[in-house]
Amino acid sequence: MIVWALLTSVGINLGLCLLFFTLYSVLRKQPSNLEVYAPRLVAAKEGSEQKNGFNFERLLPTAGWVKRAWQPSEDELLSVTSLDAVVFMRIFIFSLRVFGFAGIVGVLILLPINYLGNQLDVDFDFSDLPNKSLDSFSISNVNDGSKWLWVHFCAVYIFSGVVCYLLHYEYGYISSKRYAHYYSSKPQPHQFTILVRGIPVSSGSSCSETVERFFTEYYPSTYLSHAVVRRTNELQRLTNDAEKLYRRLVHLKSETKPQQRSRRDGFCGLFGRKVDVLDQYGKKLENLEDNVRMEQLSVAGKEVPAAFVSFKSRLGAAIALHIQQGTNPTEWVTERAPEPQDVHWPFFSSSFTLFSSSFIKRWISKLVVVVACAALTILFLIPVVIVQGLTNLEQLETWFPFLKSILNLTVVSEVITGYLPSLILQLFLSFVPPIMIMLSSMEGCISFSQIEKSACTKMLWFTIWNIFLANTLSGSVLYRFNIFLEPKKIPRILADAVPAQLLNVYAPKYDTGGRFWPTVHNSTIFSLVLMHVIAIGIFGLKKLSLASSLTVPLPIVTLLFNEYCRKRFLPIFKDYPVECLIKKDREDQNDPTIAVFYDKLSTAYKDPALVPIRHPRSTDDHNSPLLQAGV
Amino acid sequence: MIVWALLTSVGINLGLCLLFFTLYSVLRKQPSNLEVYAPRLVAAKEGSEQKNGFNFERLLPTAGWVKRAWQPSEDELLSVTSLDAVVFMRIFIFSLRVFGFAGIVGVLILLPINYLGNQLDVDFDFSDLPNKSLDSFSISNVNDGSKWLWVHFCAVYIFSGVVCYLLHYEYGYISSKRYAHYYSSKPQPHQFTILVRGIPVSSGSSCSETVERFFTEYYPSTYLSHAVVRRTNELQRLTNDAEKLYRRLVHLKSETKPQQRSRRDGFCGLFGRKVDVLDQYGKKLENLEDNVRMEQLSVAGKEVPAAFVSFKSRLGAAIALHIQQGTNPTEWVTERAPEPQDVHWPFFSSSFTLFSSSFIKRWISKLVVVVACAALTILFLIPVVIVQGLTNLEQLETWFPFLKSILNLTVVSEVITGYLPSLILQLFLSFVPPIMIMLSSMEGCISFSQIEKSACTKMLWFTIWNIFLANTLSGSVLYRFNIFLEPKKIPRILADAVPAQLLNVYAPKYDTGGRFWPTVHNSTIFSLVLMHVIAIGIFGLKKLSLASSLTVPLPIVTLLFNEYCRKRFLPIFKDYPVECLIKKDREDQNDPTIAVFYDKLSTAYKDPALVPIRHPRSTDDHNSPLLQAGV
Repeated sequence: MIVWALLTSVGINLGLCLLFFTLYSVLRKQPSNLEVYAPRLVAAKEGSEQKNGFNFERLLPTAGWVKRAWQPSEDELLSVTSLDAVVFMRIFIFSLRVFGFAGIVGVLILLPINYLGNQLDVDFDFSDLPNKSLDSFSISNVNDGSKWLWVHFCAVYIFSGVVCYLLHYEYGYISSKRYAHYYSSKPQPHQFTILVRGIPVSSGSSCSETVERFFTEYYPSTYLSHAVVRRTNELQRLTNDAEKLYRRLVHLKSETKPQQRSRRDGFCGLFGRKVDVLDQYGKKLENLEDNVRMEQLSVAGKEVPAAFVSFKSRLGAAIALHIQQGTNPTEWVTERAPEPQDVHWPFFSSSFTLFSSSFIKRWISKLVVVVACAALTILFLIPVVIVQGLTNLEQLETWFPFLKSILNLTVVSEVITGYLPSLILQLFLSFVPPIMIMLSSMEGCISFSQIEKSACTKMLWFTIWNIFLANTLSGSVLYRFNIFLEPKKIPRILADAVPAQLLNVYAPKYDTGGRFWPTVHNSTIFSLVLMHVIAIGIFGLKKLSLASSLTVPLPIVTLLFNEYCRKRFLPIFKDYPVECLIKKDREDQNDPTIAVFYDKLSTAYKDPALVPIRHPRSTDDHNSPLLQAGV
Repeated sequence: MIVWALLTSVGINLGLCLLFFTLYSVLRKQPSNLEVYAPRLVAAKEGSEQKNGFNFERLLPTAGWVKRAWQPSEDELLSVTSLDAVVFMRIFIFSLRVFGFAGIVGVLILLPINYLGNQLDVDFDFSDLPNKSLDSFSISNVNDGSKWLWVHFCAVYIFSGVVCYLLHYEYGYISSKRYAHYYSSKPQPHQFTILVRGIPVSSGSSCSETVERFFTEYYPSTYLSHAVVRRTNELQRLTNDAEKLYRRLVHLKSETKPQQRSRRDGFCGLFGRKVDVLDQYGKKLENLEDNVRMEQLSVAGKEVPAAFVSFKSRLGAAIALHIQQGTNPTEWVTERAPEPQDVHWPFFSSSFTLFSSSFIKRWISKLVVVVACAALTILFLIPVVIVQGLTNLEQLETWFPFLKSILNLTVVSEVITGYLPSLILQLFLSFVPPIMIMLSSMEGCISFSQIEKSACTKMLWFTIWNIFLANTLSGSVLYRFNIFLEPKKIPRILADAVPAQLLNVYAPKYDTGGRFWPTVHNSTIFSLVLMHVIAIGIFGLKKLSLASSLTVPLPIVTLLFNEYCRKRFLPIFKDYPVECLIKKDREDQNDPTIAVFYDKLSTAYKDPALVPIRHPRSTDDHNSPLLQAGV
């Protein structure tokens, strides 16, 4: 890659960036787009005044929102959204710091040193800069065995130190936020509830009775209630059908009404036919709803050996969570309950439940998913490379002969050869996240947050492996290393980092309490160690074996640092300690509203499919006059 | 190795075995040896009648004791010794079954097939059997690509299946024994106690106060008492000195007494001098004892931030054990308390305690130990091979010329070349276990049982690595594989397995409740997978690639089986479930002696160095007349 090509690429990206920035800043001011760009405001009905009036300023792109977006403090963010949003922001801030430091060191120190070397190019000529290979800015241009390489050596050490310091700081900071958030939180159902699986139902008694007996026996003072999970896939199908039919009916009616009004005297045949259809649909819906009600009754017998068990105190739930319950470790398996709205109910009805033992079931499905995920990750590049190979310039000219004159233009051919392969890669890549989410949902995750976290981890490994492979294939490890210390990524990070509108747009579906930070930490450690290994290789290639050997302790120390962090901080992201639990429990004891909360708690974990359907009444309310009019 | 050499070796071993067997069966019947061969009987004073009388039968070797040794049922063994002894027996029974099966398959099926092959040797001649290489009995003698190899293939599958079945059976059996033992056990201090480390002592209050405050705050209903650990290395040194001096004094006095009686009138000078020495020692001892008492008082200030905390119920202890206590995961770190007599007190006083943080301390010492252990394991063979190389026949003749004539005898030279290298290896090997125990005690293990278990694991890896290396160096992997399916090991196992005198000799120092079984299980799985890998290699070498490929699923299935066992059984060997804990706790509530037990419990975990010394009184009791007599 030559400098000119890089500059072109940067130019195109900056141009696109500016365009989208402008478009956004105009579009977001249009009242009609308010629901898109500030759904939270709309929901809170605070933005209603903005709809009035029109001014010219609305059509001018402005940058004030960027400043406003950065203004809210973490506490404001926390109070309006969730801890996850705050941790998300911390990830951006951390990344900015890391890339900022790397950028300064890279541009001001390493880049000049690289350029002043003459390993690749003996003549020292500034005039031909645009046509120079980018390699003359990389470490490959530094002379073999040169003493200047010690600057790179120091850079690696200092950079690693700075990153580790920042990681430690963030881990500690987020940990403290997590505790503070927990202390200030109101009682929430998932804090008092666990999910129990592998319930050993004895013949002659139902699952519900077994659970009730077990927990009243062993947790007489803290056990509150339970909700046995039921297989509702049939019910879900029926409810969905009813929902669809209801929507179609409402749609038809809304179409019929004006007709009805305007054509009351004439076109009676046409109108009558419509009412007939409505009538037919209404009956169908009634039938469906009867079926739903029947199924809701019969579903009571379709118990899955799993139940959400609620306790009167957080400590009670924690005890049941952390200590093995029954003598058989594969029975009475407990795990943290997700937030009620976060539960992935279809999981419990999946075909895997047909296996008799919940334990074997989960295990086999996990194995299958791991194998499928590994296969996808390893074999992904094969179809991509084949398709990319098919789309070279000559092939395109053969397929689309009429494009020949356009394709022969230098700019077009450069754009196509430069962008088309990566476009195809991006296209293929866009299919991967949905596949990973599907795999994660098969894996036995019981909540959306777990599915998304697991899919994220899968994507991470997928990306690491494929970037690695791409690198190994193209042999540009040296180049990639240099990128790591160069500021090129900053604009992209900046563009991503504008926490644009977390406050206005982001409506959290669930709150993990920042539990994804350890993943960020681990990935950073992985990148650091990868950098160290590459640095060891480069110093070796550059015939500075002393520097190579002196770099060896660095990955070891980094991994020890990681191990320290795992011990010092990771437990905080898994569970809350007795100290916290008891303090919160004692607060509750003095809270007069706790009885109301307990009432809510006992019905919090209810499969939405089991909620009585509400269409019949609403259809009756709206449509009975309509149907009467047709008679 | 030729057949004759093997037979010689077998002959020598059998002869030695018979000799020791005879010696043992005679020696054990001599009344004077009773304390050696049946210390438990002596302790229980049940064997006293046997001392009387003499009969000729005592001098004849008999075999009845072997039968008697096998007779006691597991329940008897459990009631007299401990669960560990029972599990130990199960290991022998398991090994006998495995090697019995392998022996039958090996001798009756595989050996004839191997011998009838002619890969190594075309002529088919029974007359020259003794001089044939052992290889003609091994799989190497089967013709390449022969269909007979499928018998070996089946043997590998069937053997793996049988071993897995036996493993599963034993795991389940021992698990049930573990529960049964727990249910029938009386309240024991370690069931109610945890060890807390990393106590964050605030300035201005002692460690003891901090512990008391924390546990009365968070466990008001179940907390019973605590014992802060103190640095007693100085005290231990003084106590040891005092103990030594006391023993010398007692010894001197026992020497003096008969003199005193018989020579009361004469030799007054000599006698007087002895009494002078006694007097001097007595004063020295008194001084030492004063120092001990002083140190015992001053040691109260030398608190280590660790304490044994006892609870009123097993569940209380389990809760404190399983749930993180403080907000900082490196503080208030809890772990299972060992049995009181099993605590390795010197650990708490070791120099590592000088580090301020107990967490960092343990971590660094663990790292050091891991590195040292790995170095020892990997580099062990280097000195051994060097020393072995120095002791060949020519070298010995040069060093000891007078042995020349003896060394030239065929028998002697064969014994020396056959035995000397392995003797040297054995000599070096005998140094390893003490080193491993030392390393384990540095590692942060707080009990003797932990130290021994950890040293065992280290020895296991040491052995595996060194056998592997020895194999790779000698290139006899094929041969080793064959051995695995051959019955040669049975006599050795039998010799080891005679549970001779578990009932009479074995006095358990601690009871882990059979917690070492998972190690046996894991090692067996490791051996199985190793066998599979070797089998895959052999079938490949033997040009039966289909068999090679068809063996590949076997290690995978074996590892999955292991994973299943880890989930199904391993938790049982770590902790007892809530169900057990609460049942036992409820039993205690109806037990009138529980108050007495609580009293004992609060003083159970006391550093023996802090126990008031008892020499002064006993010395006074015994010796005051002696000293008076000297005056």
